[in-house]
Amino acid sequence: MPSLESYSRELDYSYAPGLFPSLEAMTKRPELVRRLLVSSKGQDSEGVQKLIRLAERERIRVETADKALGRISGKENCFAAAVISKTPSPLLETEDHIVLHHISDQGNLGTILRTALGFGYHDIAVIRPAADAFDPKVVRASMGALFSLRLREYDDWTDYRKDFPNHAAYPFMLDGSSLMDDAAQKTLRPCALIFGNEGSGLPKEFQREGRPVRIPSSDEVDSLNLSIAAGIGMYIFRRK
Amino acid sequence: MPSLESYSRELDYSYAPGLFPSLEAMTKRPELVRRLLVSSKGQDSEGVQKLIRLAERERIRVETADKALGRISGKENCFAAAVISKTPSPLLETEDHIVLHHISDQGNLGTILRTALGFGYHDIAVIRPAADAFDPKVVRASMGALFSLRLREYDDWTDYRKDFPNHAAYPFMLDGSSLMDDAAQKTLRPCALIFGNEGSGLPKEFQREGRPVRIPSSDEVDSLNLSIAAGIGMYIFRRK
Repeated sequence: MPSLESYSRELDYSYAPGLFPSLEAMTKRPELVRRLLVSSKGQDSEGVQKLIRLAERERIRVETADKALGRISGKENCFAAAVISKTPSPLLETEDHIVLHHISDQGNLGTILRTALGFGYHDIAVIRPAADAFDPKVVRASMGALFSLRLREYDDWTDYRKDFPNHAAYPFMLDGSSLMDDAAQKTLRPCALIFGNEGSGLPKEFQREGRPVRIPSSDEVDSLNLSIAAGIGMYIFRRK
Repeated sequence: MPSLESYSRELDYSYAPGLFPSLEAMTKRPELVRRLLVSSKGQDSEGVQKLIRLAERERIRVETADKALGRISGKENCFAAAVISKTPSPLLETEDHIVLHHISDQGNLGTILRTALGFGYHDIAVIRPAADAFDPKVVRASMGALFSLRLREYDDWTDYRKDFPNHAAYPFMLDGSSLMDDAAQKTLRPCALIFGNEGSGLPKEFQREGRPVRIPSSDEVDSLNLSIAAGIGMYIFRRK
């Protein structure tokens, strides 16, 4: 393996910076972990010790790499990072899906991944252009949720639809014709909950896809924050 | 009025940076606006023109202040900022309240303020220590929602409770004894929805306040992001 580069989309590997995200990578997807980086300052911490024990068990190489950790995380006191292979995982046809259409903010994407896992959704389609789910900032914002999810990028909605023509589509739109709670009372399964870009939402073509839903809110704000809207939608549509 | 300083908590004024937050300040609380700052680059933009017309109508002084705008916003291309008086507004006794206990993240606070307004909550108690709701970063993250809300800081929960002994308390806790949806089905009004710190949540004393509720979520995550949990809670408890 060549020396470690700053992350970019073209690399076939990425980093899970921080104790918690590294631990998630190491326990949920050890087969993806190429190396474990630890800082010389953090060697004695309980978290790093636990990571090192796990790495030994999985026969993963451990390296002290203070400089690389600073560069990867952009922080002074990052104690560890797992170097992970980027591999897309096919979504399951029988499961509900979360479809993220042109989501551009890394923090939003990470938060949505974590929330999806919190409400039992394991299958995520990201429609490009979009923030990169493997970017270390997203991995960190997701608290490592990425390692418990199946995630695949698509070039457009039509490509996703070819793979999954039978998922009941629920596009979230400010002018969706159904109230979210009404639609959720008799959710067709498996379903695809579809959320659009932070600024522009979903394109109007989605008015003709499945059952467009809206979250009722006051006229005093022009829209809800995307990750809040997605959180509420995933909660309301979750399997009980 | 003295020359404009970088924001600090001790000042009796703050800034609403950006076109949208300035517009909110100018239309919702013009009596708070001391001056309007505009950039020389933005003079011809529609938004700035609208702000200048509003300022003239309200007899508010307009100043071209490129340097101050850069300093206040931390951005190169901030076209306008309203300079606003910081005045707490007493909460209404008859209304539902959102109580934010030791919330430390500015982005979370701003997002929660915006979401509160989106679901019709206008009364916010902030229990210190906490992020400063008047900080320009919070004002911006709230998209100016602050100017449509009543917000008061308290030194502790007991002080809030002295002012509002009769609000039905719903503390949100990971180990709350009631499921949120069950509790919300027969919400006592007026109510206080209480959310705790990002890392540590609410202290265990809140187990004895009102009816502690939990948001059901998967064991696969240790907790939900605070602003997501608050968004879901405010949505479920809103008056329909």
